[in-house]
Amino acid sequence: LAYNSMDLFSTEIQFTDWLAKQSAGKARGLRLGIGDDAALVEPRRGFQWVVTTDLSVEGVHFSARLHPPEAVGHRAVARSLSDVAAMGGEPRFALVSLALSRRVKRPWIKAFFAGAIGLARGHRVKLVGGDTALNAGQTVADVTVLGEVPRGEALLRSGARPGDQICVAGELGDSALGLRLLKASVSPRSPSTREAVRAHLYPEPQCGLGVFLARRRIASAAIDLSDGLSTDLRRLTQASKAGARIWADRIPAPAAPAGDEERDALLALALHGGEDYKLLFTVPLSRMELVPKRFNRTVIYRIGEIEHRRLGVQIVQNGKAVPLKAQGYDHFRIG
Amino acid sequence: LAYNSMDLFSTEIQFTDWLAKQSAGKARGLRLGIGDDAALVEPRRGFQWVVTTDLSVEGVHFSARLHPPEAVGHRAVARSLSDVAAMGGEPRFALVSLALSRRVKRPWIKAFFAGAIGLARGHRVKLVGGDTALNAGQTVADVTVLGEVPRGEALLRSGARPGDQICVAGELGDSALGLRLLKASVSPRSPSTREAVRAHLYPEPQCGLGVFLARRRIASAAIDLSDGLSTDLRRLTQASKAGARIWADRIPAPAAPAGDEERDALLALALHGGEDYKLLFTVPLSRMELVPKRFNRTVIYRIGEIEHRRLGVQIVQNGKAVPLKAQGYDHFRIG
Repeated sequence: LAYNSMDLFSTEIQFTDWLAKQSAGKARGLRLGIGDDAALVEPRRGFQWVVTTDLSVEGVHFSARLHPPEAVGHRAVARSLSDVAAMGGEPRFALVSLALSRRVKRPWIKAFFAGAIGLARGHRVKLVGGDTALNAGQTVADVTVLGEVPRGEALLRSGARPGDQICVAGELGDSALGLRLLKASVSPRSPSTREAVRAHLYPEPQCGLGVFLARRRIASAAIDLSDGLSTDLRRLTQASKAGARIWADRIPAPAAPAGDEERDALLALALHGGEDYKLLFTVPLSRMELVPKRFNRTVIYRIGEIEHRRLGVQIVQNGKAVPLKAQGYDHFRIG
Repeated sequence: LAYNSMDLFSTEIQFTDWLAKQSAGKARGLRLGIGDDAALVEPRRGFQWVVTTDLSVEGVHFSARLHPPEAVGHRAVARSLSDVAAMGGEPRFALVSLALSRRVKRPWIKAFFAGAIGLARGHRVKLVGGDTALNAGQTVADVTVLGEVPRGEALLRSGARPGDQICVAGELGDSALGLRLLKASVSPRSPSTREAVRAHLYPEPQCGLGVFLARRRIASAAIDLSDGLSTDLRRLTQASKAGARIWADRIPAPAAPAGDEERDALLALALHGGEDYKLLFTVPLSRMELVPKRFNRTVIYRIGEIEHRRLGVQIVQNGKAVPLKAQGYDHFRIG
């Protein structure tokens, strides 16, 4: 992004022009991007559209102190891309709305969009619209993403059946651990510390994997792990009218350098931490041979099995199956 | 909307269930609504999609003191519907994101959605998604609307040519006048006072007119009057690389009960007030015979003509043409 002049953004028209430049260029199906009353896009024949929108609120999803503006923009877009990934969609277009706190300075705005547009570009997603306003309170971003999926191929939460294997792509709990380290102002000495902080600030949505699982009809159901495994697994089982059993020792939690106590705390981060943006998906036993050990460099872990509904959601720990309570992030559970 | 129980919304899942119920039912092209990671919609063959998103920020677009929650929801959806109308699109689906101030009580939320969903229903628009979060600061809503338009028929800002007639559908300035009356706590004694307050609180997007103008290829360009005639006309002429001349005495400003001074103030509201959500469109002279005097009950006014670019945007008042400065609402012009 070019920092041409500090008197950019003195009017909304100039801001829109600047933004249009950052997201200029052609894209398949794009007829009209930023600059008119609305964007104009043309879907491919035989494709359905996946549409999702996600808020990123200062003080809830990020803090001005802990999160650099590039990370705020990156994470805001990652939230929506991850939803499209969970449906098996190929993300195509994004709209970014930003209600800016009056405390925010212009370099923050540019860095926010650098992060947002940077991640979008990496997934070949075009910024085609949005809105901006000044806000007396917190900064609030809302990102809408449109993706394409061939008719009838979308992955839903509701397709899991008893006997299906529960898989997760990549490690869990790193994002929550990274947030903890950021809060404690731990300087990133070790590679694993650095990795956790990076996982928190710059999560990578698994769009390629989602498309792979959908097109090859491998997964029976999928959801992205945005609010924590315990909460999101419950959402998947509820939608599928099923139960589930997972094994604690198969959950790819962050490695514990110390003793058992530390290990339990790290397992809790993997179960309830949230913001991992990894895909949780279920696979019928007969299709398990189609699941690769790794997708690109991401390890696929088999962590449990879909059960009958009456079993609820259980976790097997130290040889005992106990109910797994949904303790992940819930925006409407206050205090 | 049913007020079943005050312990609704104790968790996000319950809230989502409640919202899904409010927006339940089938719609053409809707494959999956609220409840999964994303909505799934299917476009009609040969149609393009109009996509827009608009913020409604407490303290900027509404205030908790002056605007009842139904009006906040109605206006938030109206902003996006009006953008789709300006492109000649038929609105189909909406996503509503709401970052709620912690000061807000549950009845406010329900009334907000009653207003939002009520207007959407009136335009046969289905709520298919959104997001919610609690916000330490102001309430912020962001509404995304998807509309359909036959390929190549969308109305753009950029199509106006010198000689085209400039038209506006309905009266201007009522919304700004209504806001003024609300601020002054004037009780709505006269019908015109009531009408102005109503125009402010419950603006009616002109989607039917937009579709009419696009399908019959009447308009060469269009924009919706969200930020005031002086600002939005400039946007249209800039996109069209043209100038414009409008006549003050043709602008359908609120009627002045008193003298000239009052009339000038009311004209200023019509020129710069904003939030009218009426369509401003241009029509080649040869197509003017196709413009009806009224569309449904809305009077169409011819207020000026597109000129060459070098003329800029002028207003003719008392026989003299003077430059019309863009003085409408601009979110990035502070103070």
